[in-house]
Amino acid sequence: MKLARYGQPGAEKPALVDANGKLRDASKLVDGDYGPAFFASGGLEKLRGVDVDSLPLVADNARVGSCIARPGNFVAIGLNYVQHAIETNAPIPEEPIIFNKAPSCISGPYDPVRLPRNSVKTDWEVEIAFVIGKHAHYVEQSDALSYIAGFCVCNDISEREFQLEHGGQWVKGKMAPTFGPIGPWLVTTDEIADVQQLPLWLELNGKRIQNSNTSDMIFPIAKLLSYTSQFVALEPGDIITTGTPPGVGLGMKPEKYLKPGDVMELSVEGLGVQRQVVRTWDEQ
Amino acid sequence: MKLARYGQPGAEKPALVDANGKLRDASKLVDGDYGPAFFASGGLEKLRGVDVDSLPLVADNARVGSCIARPGNFVAIGLNYVQHAIETNAPIPEEPIIFNKAPSCISGPYDPVRLPRNSVKTDWEVEIAFVIGKHAHYVEQSDALSYIAGFCVCNDISEREFQLEHGGQWVKGKMAPTFGPIGPWLVTTDEIADVQQLPLWLELNGKRIQNSNTSDMIFPIAKLLSYTSQFVALEPGDIITTGTPPGVGLGMKPEKYLKPGDVMELSVEGLGVQRQVVRTWDEQ
Repeated sequence: MKLARYGQPGAEKPALVDANGKLRDASKLVDGDYGPAFFASGGLEKLRGVDVDSLPLVADNARVGSCIARPGNFVAIGLNYVQHAIETNAPIPEEPIIFNKAPSCISGPYDPVRLPRNSVKTDWEVEIAFVIGKHAHYVEQSDALSYIAGFCVCNDISEREFQLEHGGQWVKGKMAPTFGPIGPWLVTTDEIADVQQLPLWLELNGKRIQNSNTSDMIFPIAKLLSYTSQFVALEPGDIITTGTPPGVGLGMKPEKYLKPGDVMELSVEGLGVQRQVVRTWDEQ
Repeated sequence: MKLARYGQPGAEKPALVDANGKLRDASKLVDGDYGPAFFASGGLEKLRGVDVDSLPLVADNARVGSCIARPGNFVAIGLNYVQHAIETNAPIPEEPIIFNKAPSCISGPYDPVRLPRNSVKTDWEVEIAFVIGKHAHYVEQSDALSYIAGFCVCNDISEREFQLEHGGQWVKGKMAPTFGPIGPWLVTTDEIADVQQLPLWLELNGKRIQNSNTSDMIFPIAKLLSYTSQFVALEPGDIITTGTPPGVGLGMKPEKYLKPGDVMELSVEGLGVQRQVVRTWDEQ
């Protein structure tokens, strides 16, 4: 099952994706939105077995929103691919590195990514993210995948000068509006044969510059969920993005960053393709 | 005006505090809860002028919850008092340090603080926190205080071994359940003559070990809001806690940490007094 949302920002409606990749309106089947209450109340199970093709087609030109509503927490993992740690001159982590993005940074998969005011080093990061399906605290790694509702693509946009050159913690470069494109689809776990065997890639202006596989993760997703749940109670609808493979602008020689008009396309196999045009904060 | 919430965890009801410090039920005046939608829709303004003494008294033995409902974002500032930076052997920040706590860590002002499993260094931090009243992004320092709905006490409970000895960022030690006692009251800005002239203190088992004044902050609250809003869009109901003065366990020689049965009492003048008993995660 593939969940998606469509409509104007802040007023999105729930949809399901049919076999042709078309969105079908699921408003009548969902009490509210694909948010924390939906996942906490077994909303996903209630959708199983629905005849997707019988639902009303959504207009092709509808805006596609993030595939989940505003989460209670947006957690991120850093440096989870060996070659990405090396390219950024960071030590290879002995334990997963956890930081936060802001729920208010989330945007749709095709919305523009906006350079914050005073940004000089805005960078891309294709990642696979997972969404929590049930309360997850002190979870064993062997049980961890059963706590996941589904998977989606996340572009963990990062302003490196904000992140690394203003003292303290990384979050200054991780939280700006539009720094979290999510979607286009939340693909439920039953549709993914092996989440640690998925190609993922990012193209900048048509050139593939990130090209890896989730098999290259240092810590697999089950470990990330179990480990994170030792430190925080994860709740239904929370989203955790799992780190990016090599090929970011910070790792290039010379370093290369986003500029207005740049186009990013990115995907994790089976989870759909995102596409974002880069704009300044203040332009229309 | 002083806002409070009472009732069982997850089912709290809104209240106002009368001149005698008693809670009065405000359920009939508030559409929902003191959450993001309340602040975004001008809920605070609608309460002004209410005859608090005419509202029903809440039973004295009712549990008091966090004074705000689950926020969209829970931001924290690190090392914002010179002597606290010195006691923890950290450089004095040249810019505010930002990190995140988890909304799921929030608890009531009198709820037990629970040591996480495997905790060895759980520490206290009395702080003044502020709650965002309206969308705040790229806010000038001179306007910043007008974006604040009110102030409250926050105990920024921190597990130092999780925070500092597992690699990466601080948040591993900042997000555990019960690590964010908030309240007892959200005191609206009109009741605070000068938020940078408020004594704040914490007593451990009756001994005062933090004793400072918000005038000792490195970066005042208006600066913190303005600065943070350059990096993240803050939204109504978000909470930002502003850093702790010296006197934490990490700064003692020898270091000293919380153990089951310890009692913390803490306050910021005019914002009420918190009291927490320390328990293990698994005990009743």
